[in-house]
Amino acid sequence: MLDISLIGTGGMMPLPHRHLSSLLMRYEGRLILIDCGEGSQVTQKQLGWGYKTIDAICLTHFHADHVAGLPGLLLSIAHSERTQALTIIGPAGVAHIVKSLCVIVGELPFALNFVEIPKDGFTGFKVPLTNFHLSAAPALHNCPTFAFRVDIHRKGRFDAEAAKGHGIPLQFWNKLQKGQVVEYEGQTFTPSMVMGEDRKGLSVSYITDSRPPKWIPDFIKGSDLFICEGQYGDEALLQKAKAHRHMIFSEAATMARAGNVGKMWLTHFSPALQNPKDYLQNARKIFPKTYVGYDRITETLNFEDNTT
Amino acid sequence: MLDISLIGTGGMMPLPHRHLSSLLMRYEGRLILIDCGEGSQVTQKQLGWGYKTIDAICLTHFHADHVAGLPGLLLSIAHSERTQALTIIGPAGVAHIVKSLCVIVGELPFALNFVEIPKDGFTGFKVPLTNFHLSAAPALHNCPTFAFRVDIHRKGRFDAEAAKGHGIPLQFWNKLQKGQVVEYEGQTFTPSMVMGEDRKGLSVSYITDSRPPKWIPDFIKGSDLFICEGQYGDEALLQKAKAHRHMIFSEAATMARAGNVGKMWLTHFSPALQNPKDYLQNARKIFPKTYVGYDRITETLNFEDNTT
Repeated sequence: MLDISLIGTGGMMPLPHRHLSSLLMRYEGRLILIDCGEGSQVTQKQLGWGYKTIDAICLTHFHADHVAGLPGLLLSIAHSERTQALTIIGPAGVAHIVKSLCVIVGELPFALNFVEIPKDGFTGFKVPLTNFHLSAAPALHNCPTFAFRVDIHRKGRFDAEAAKGHGIPLQFWNKLQKGQVVEYEGQTFTPSMVMGEDRKGLSVSYITDSRPPKWIPDFIKGSDLFICEGQYGDEALLQKAKAHRHMIFSEAATMARAGNVGKMWLTHFSPALQNPKDYLQNARKIFPKTYVGYDRITETLNFEDNTT
Repeated sequence: MLDISLIGTGGMMPLPHRHLSSLLMRYEGRLILIDCGEGSQVTQKQLGWGYKTIDAICLTHFHADHVAGLPGLLLSIAHSERTQALTIIGPAGVAHIVKSLCVIVGELPFALNFVEIPKDGFTGFKVPLTNFHLSAAPALHNCPTFAFRVDIHRKGRFDAEAAKGHGIPLQFWNKLQKGQVVEYEGQTFTPSMVMGEDRKGLSVSYITDSRPPKWIPDFIKGSDLFICEGQYGDEALLQKAKAHRHMIFSEAATMARAGNVGKMWLTHFSPALQNPKDYLQNARKIFPKTYVGYDRITETLNFEDNTT
């Protein structure tokens, strides 16, 4: 199962009762974080998933409300006694930005590995130490910005009858399930002999600080959960959204519908938008499964037919 | 009157219910801030004194829990439409540190002026745009760190009888009260002819992240309010305090008593110290006017005999 928590839902500046927009995901006990604004570590502490197993931090872009919490979070990860390398993924220049911010951080007990996202994005990057597969697509903001998609793959079923039919000894079944090829007494047993087709996995996509790119519906296609910025709720603020390179709720909903996602959470609300629910209908009339995000809204996604 | 608010009281990392140690002071509508850890702008928003008139930010040292909130605060000051220059005061290298952190901040609508504190400190620096007079003395931490003292001066009384005795026309009294010399019909009128001795002003001193320096009692002498770190309350943690270059409550109280200050607030509590009041007696038996600080504890200091 994949746990997802939208640990903050604000844009521009942290507020007393709304942390900056950020997403934490947990799978097989490992965590990845998307964005890290000022105060991110505080809402993470409230959530209680711990800091130690954060294996990657993905940055949509380098505006302060998405990255200023990095020095503090890295120090708190250090205090958790992590020693494994941590991967930081972001637009070109990510190493320079993070190193500049870390002028106030002493030597960390773990290495930082940096991954620059090519300007056209990437697909299916396996995040080290985890089974998260990360894809990135360009967003449309006033600086290089990326949308993210996380996929959890699921193998096909193991076919015990096929294994018996091939005369594969029981001791090798587990290796084949793990995708390994087995050589035994002159015979070669391959996973394809015993494993069914890959089954539907889980996916979550996330876009913030962007106008609605026309390629995003394809990018988020079929996501179980789509998390999208809604800087403004009011339709009357469309011109303002265009000027600031953000979206209104109805634009987010239009992308969600086109992407045929399972549901959508709205996030990254303007500080002036005190009650996003006042405008929820602007999205729901286009995409009914829209929900207003709030700090630490959490969901667990399970595989379909979770019996094996 | 001088308004003082200890807007955060934590050390090391921000907690859900305890912001990082930081002090905001207001006099004649102008603000100065001492230290700016992650989330400082949030507790400032809760306090409600605004961002626009923050004329100076004084940094005790460059550990993340004292400076990581700078980029976000500077952006919030920018959103408040400040255009006047802002002064940032700190140990040697302050410009480099702040500029590195500001890699995620675009162009600000106000200039940043940097003031490096000499290694032996300074006395009576008049903070631009304000009537705060700032002094700094070295602290004893594991990096260059300073204690601060803020003084608000108060002139003597205007002696109307003396002015009449000198034959000074009424139209010049105000200039003389402001310290100006007046030349009139061949005569010279000086402030000393009409102004009494300077009266007692107001003063606040602040030391955090330090062992107890032997020169601090002199530095804080007679402060109306002394704010001092108490990383640990328990006497049994003295060795730990020494190792980490911090203090226990009783050490803070010993300095307060020696400095003959009006009262003391404790701050910069270890995250492990959940209830500082449990150890308050360790300080009060040495210095009875000790109080446990909490986020946004606020006090207004008035001049003595505030009738003229």
